[in-house]
Amino acid sequence: MKLADLGEFGLIARLKERLAAQPEDVIVGIDDDAAVLRSSPDHLTLLTTDALIEGVHFSLDYFDYYQVGWRAMAANLSDIAAMGGEPQFAVISMGLPKDMPVASVDDLYDGLQSLAERSQTAIVGGDTTSSPRGLFLSIAVVGRVEERHLAQRKGARVGDEIFVTGSVGAARAGYLVLNSEQMIKEDRFAALVKKHLTPFPRLQEARFLVQNFPINAMIDISDGLASEIHHICRCSQVGAMLTANSFPVETEAIEVAMRSSEEALDYALYGGEDFELLFAVPPGYADDLVRKFKQSFDLGCTRIGEVRRASAGVELEMAAGQRVAIERKGFDHFKPA
Amino acid sequence: MKLADLGEFGLIARLKERLAAQPEDVIVGIDDDAAVLRSSPDHLTLLTTDALIEGVHFSLDYFDYYQVGWRAMAANLSDIAAMGGEPQFAVISMGLPKDMPVASVDDLYDGLQSLAERSQTAIVGGDTTSSPRGLFLSIAVVGRVEERHLAQRKGARVGDEIFVTGSVGAARAGYLVLNSEQMIKEDRFAALVKKHLTPFPRLQEARFLVQNFPINAMIDISDGLASEIHHICRCSQVGAMLTANSFPVETEAIEVAMRSSEEALDYALYGGEDFELLFAVPPGYADDLVRKFKQSFDLGCTRIGEVRRASAGVELEMAAGQRVAIERKGFDHFKPA
Repeated sequence: MKLADLGEFGLIARLKERLAAQPEDVIVGIDDDAAVLRSSPDHLTLLTTDALIEGVHFSLDYFDYYQVGWRAMAANLSDIAAMGGEPQFAVISMGLPKDMPVASVDDLYDGLQSLAERSQTAIVGGDTTSSPRGLFLSIAVVGRVEERHLAQRKGARVGDEIFVTGSVGAARAGYLVLNSEQMIKEDRFAALVKKHLTPFPRLQEARFLVQNFPINAMIDISDGLASEIHHICRCSQVGAMLTANSFPVETEAIEVAMRSSEEALDYALYGGEDFELLFAVPPGYADDLVRKFKQSFDLGCTRIGEVRRASAGVELEMAAGQRVAIERKGFDHFKPA
Repeated sequence: MKLADLGEFGLIARLKERLAAQPEDVIVGIDDDAAVLRSSPDHLTLLTTDALIEGVHFSLDYFDYYQVGWRAMAANLSDIAAMGGEPQFAVISMGLPKDMPVASVDDLYDGLQSLAERSQTAIVGGDTTSSPRGLFLSIAVVGRVEERHLAQRKGARVGDEIFVTGSVGAARAGYLVLNSEQMIKEDRFAALVKKHLTPFPRLQEARFLVQNFPINAMIDISDGLASEIHHICRCSQVGAMLTANSFPVETEAIEVAMRSSEEALDYALYGGEDFELLFAVPPGYADDLVRKFKQSFDLGCTRIGEVRRASAGVELEMAAGQRVAIERKGFDHFKPA
């Protein structure tokens, strides 16, 4: 059997089975955005890693080196945000082609450093090697979170309301803009492009949420809404109903979809790369949460569905009222091209 | 300027300059085997990362997948050992070719897991993606060390005696055996091959040393004795005199060198991949240390030189008595092929 047959989810499940029993001080192992480790009496340690590979996650046709560095750091910090935590330290493995200009390495590093600084994350080490083909970055970030503020994928309860920060589908729309000779020239798509190239992880927003509201479960939606709601439901042993009409899709993203003969709804569900937070909160907080979130960050936070019993499945209510199962799919790294 | 012109050391120095000022809780940042972070009142946290790339660090012509997994984990654990610490948690980024058989992924994972288990290290997460060409692994390990037992590259003092655990040059000799149609068939070289393919990091040995002796400075010699003694001297602002005669080179390694028309001394100085520990101890401990070390691990620990003033340079006394400067060279990832 080849990896292409097993698929990414299949592989991860398989690796998990092969894992030794986890020691007592591992609160959360594989199967969340970051590992959670017992460290001191008042804090838990978070540990996550995420790689960015040329030709898989990005192309230098439309990413500059600064953006590659930024984007790699963003993916890791977003995992820390998804746990409700604060990043502290990062180490960086880089595989660099031998013929890469030193000025480009400087740019790459500036991108890493720039987002790390803005996120109070100290880059404390790394490993630099040559790469036989293409550039890759693998970052590991250590962070921390108070035990009472830890937000996991598990914990959502029947009746919880489901929210998402910011907008969905923007990064995918930005990707299409980047690959369109016409749209790339139009200023009004610049924000979408920025969300694809240099997304800002929702660290402050996550801290605000866990400090002010009972967040029962949280995840970032870097693999797309469809895949991530399934993660929450599987880990929490619940089902969910999302409402397509309520999805916060930007007007510009809808326009990009129309001009590309695609569906903006697909961007939201399957596009991925949006470093927004998807989370579940008990009923009764929605108005207060949305208002205070908007006040604090000048950013929307939208109720997009609710948690149901597991037996009810994971469904989407379409605009016309019909309900369809949400497929558990996102970007699969091992899918045959 | 290309990376090939700058070289690996030049690149690391350049990146270090671009680093932001490190916050107070970073005790040691870049410039040691692992970063050292203030965590709890009685322990420091260690954080390190190390990548293993097909076509750069290994070839599947002579590594099987199990050995690749083991070897990648060993390199990271050796960095924790070099600080005098204990590993606790690991996260693993893997870039896997799409056509890789799932059975090979299992083997790779078993190699990782096998060494992790023997070293009381919990694998707590990772990131699995496809790789456009070749396999790569990037691991990050979190460990801990009591503040009084922390061993850094800096700290060696004039007059200290310099020791190395086990033997030097064996991994390089093992590499030559692996690539020789004749020698690979000869059983007596099996131990050299093993030191290349599945080295065991000196974790217990390091703990024994820091718990029982005043270790002023320590490093692992994964880049070769020459490169690593220079690291200690630079970080400690001292010089050193090593004695070629005293180097613990195995008889089989000398034989491999002779049959390859090479110098075993070069393997020791520049071969690298030996996951042994190089360390400095004040005078007066040598006999006791060597004896107790041998008793505890059935392994040699050899005095190979002493620390001098920085102005005396880093030199090697040859068998005939002449002294030569030790070049600060090891494997340079960006050297033109």
